[in-house]
Amino acid sequence: MKREDLQHTGSFKLRGALNAVLSLDPRARRRGVVVASTGNHGLAVTHALAIAGVRGTIVVPRTIDPAKRARLERAGAKLLVCGDDSVETEAAARAIAANRRLHYVSPYNDAAVVAGQGTLGLEILEDLPDVDAVFVAVGGGGLISGVAAAIKSARRSARVYGCIPARSPFMSRSVRAGRILGLEEVDSGETLSDATAGGIEERAITFDLCRELVDEFVEVGEDEIRRAMATLLFDARAVVEGAAAVALAGWSRKRRSLGRAKSVVLLCGANVDPALIRKIARAPARRA
Amino acid sequence: MKREDLQHTGSFKLRGALNAVLSLDPRARRRGVVVASTGNHGLAVTHALAIAGVRGTIVVPRTIDPAKRARLERAGAKLLVCGDDSVETEAAARAIAANRRLHYVSPYNDAAVVAGQGTLGLEILEDLPDVDAVFVAVGGGGLISGVAAAIKSARRSARVYGCIPARSPFMSRSVRAGRILGLEEVDSGETLSDATAGGIEERAITFDLCRELVDEFVEVGEDEIRRAMATLLFDARAVVEGAAAVALAGWSRKRRSLGRAKSVVLLCGANVDPALIRKIARAPARRA
Repeated sequence: MKREDLQHTGSFKLRGALNAVLSLDPRARRRGVVVASTGNHGLAVTHALAIAGVRGTIVVPRTIDPAKRARLERAGAKLLVCGDDSVETEAAARAIAANRRLHYVSPYNDAAVVAGQGTLGLEILEDLPDVDAVFVAVGGGGLISGVAAAIKSARRSARVYGCIPARSPFMSRSVRAGRILGLEEVDSGETLSDATAGGIEERAITFDLCRELVDEFVEVGEDEIRRAMATLLFDARAVVEGAAAVALAGWSRKRRSLGRAKSVVLLCGANVDPALIRKIARAPARRA
Repeated sequence: MKREDLQHTGSFKLRGALNAVLSLDPRARRRGVVVASTGNHGLAVTHALAIAGVRGTIVVPRTIDPAKRARLERAGAKLLVCGDDSVETEAAARAIAANRRLHYVSPYNDAAVVAGQGTLGLEILEDLPDVDAVFVAVGGGGLISGVAAAIKSARRSARVYGCIPARSPFMSRSVRAGRILGLEEVDSGETLSDATAGGIEERAITFDLCRELVDEFVEVGEDEIRRAMATLLFDARAVVEGAAAVALAGWSRKRRSLGRAKSVVLLCGANVDPALIRKIARAPARRA
């Protein structure tokens, strides 16, 4: 397991955010950045801005969860409350960026962000040069694109599995369809893996990367995600978010066919609601 | 926090066990070692023996918990079942060691074990050279003796706090009394911190070390331990054993008087029963 739940800010997102902020040209750096995120990405960019000494605004919806708001504020974020949901908020953030000529940092549709996540692939290769299989959760595809590009550059034979909740399978269905599917074209609903939920931006650079670099998508159900979270909590003593459990659930699905393959399961983050930890802890422990 | 819950074998014990096994003279090394432990120490010695290529026997009582037995066997331990409780088992292990001239590895009353735990103090100094206060759980005193010796060798002004369950306060009461108190001389009972529970061997080398090196003992109640476990689970996302929570509970007790002191809380291990994780997760979250 590659434990990004132990990463600063509690997820892998700091890698991409830091690379994006440090890659700004001097003028963009002086002006600052804008993001729209109440979660891991917003927290990661806030941290990256503090490290780099760059200004930035985190645009959040009016409906933001108070705990998430407090977490961002504790980290020193300059918040701008705008919009009633994440779609409106993102549109507002992009408009602000365009009007004030500020750099908008997308959570995944940004080459610098993808490259930053790729450092994870380099670390996996450092620790396990003969890795055969890597299991990564897929949402917008930024994480798996970076990881797969890094892994395949050094070890072509390694297989990269895109693990995705069956309740929000935008990237897997889009790759199968050969084009990015719209929100209304894919059956979707609530999932324990909130960090990977949601559609994909039109013309997202991650679509072609996923199409080229992901060997196989594994769609997993909510029960499998729940079981994987329990296994991680009770056996690995790891408190992780749903998206991290998606990767383990994907591995569980394939484990028989893997034989003696050297596999890495990427635990992407730990930002899980205490209520969900309680729910997982209450259920009887079973192996994923 | 110094996260020894993430250490190999799930606790700091590997440090002392490895140093003890690697310090054997060639003859003792060929003969092998004996230990009596169903817990962290037994697992750590098993791991150390595998690393060093030394033979050894882990003596366990007939009453050993099946999950603990399975864990030792998975790690490759050669078990010998002997005795009805830990006192009988330890006596048997010592008798076997004496008869067969094998080295008995005590969990704490062994200079090589104490020195091995001391590497933790060196790492704390490496990461935080101006550390002011270190909070460490105390059972037999092997961990805190090693850590305090290392810390004080480089930074005399740093205070070392011995955190101990009020339900099993053998070392704190013994230091106060000026001699090692027997089992019947100290009021004790069951504690969530099973890893630090129990009396101290006669003539244990850790008694003088604790007397000299521990600045203050902090006795904490079971409620404080429980609260600290919940804080670690929900806020730090760390699944730890009761003894690790004892150290955080000690820090919580002293936090007001610490002011701006740079403090380290040592989380000694993660070997907690799933039933206890469930119990902690069920309780309402409160800050320790």
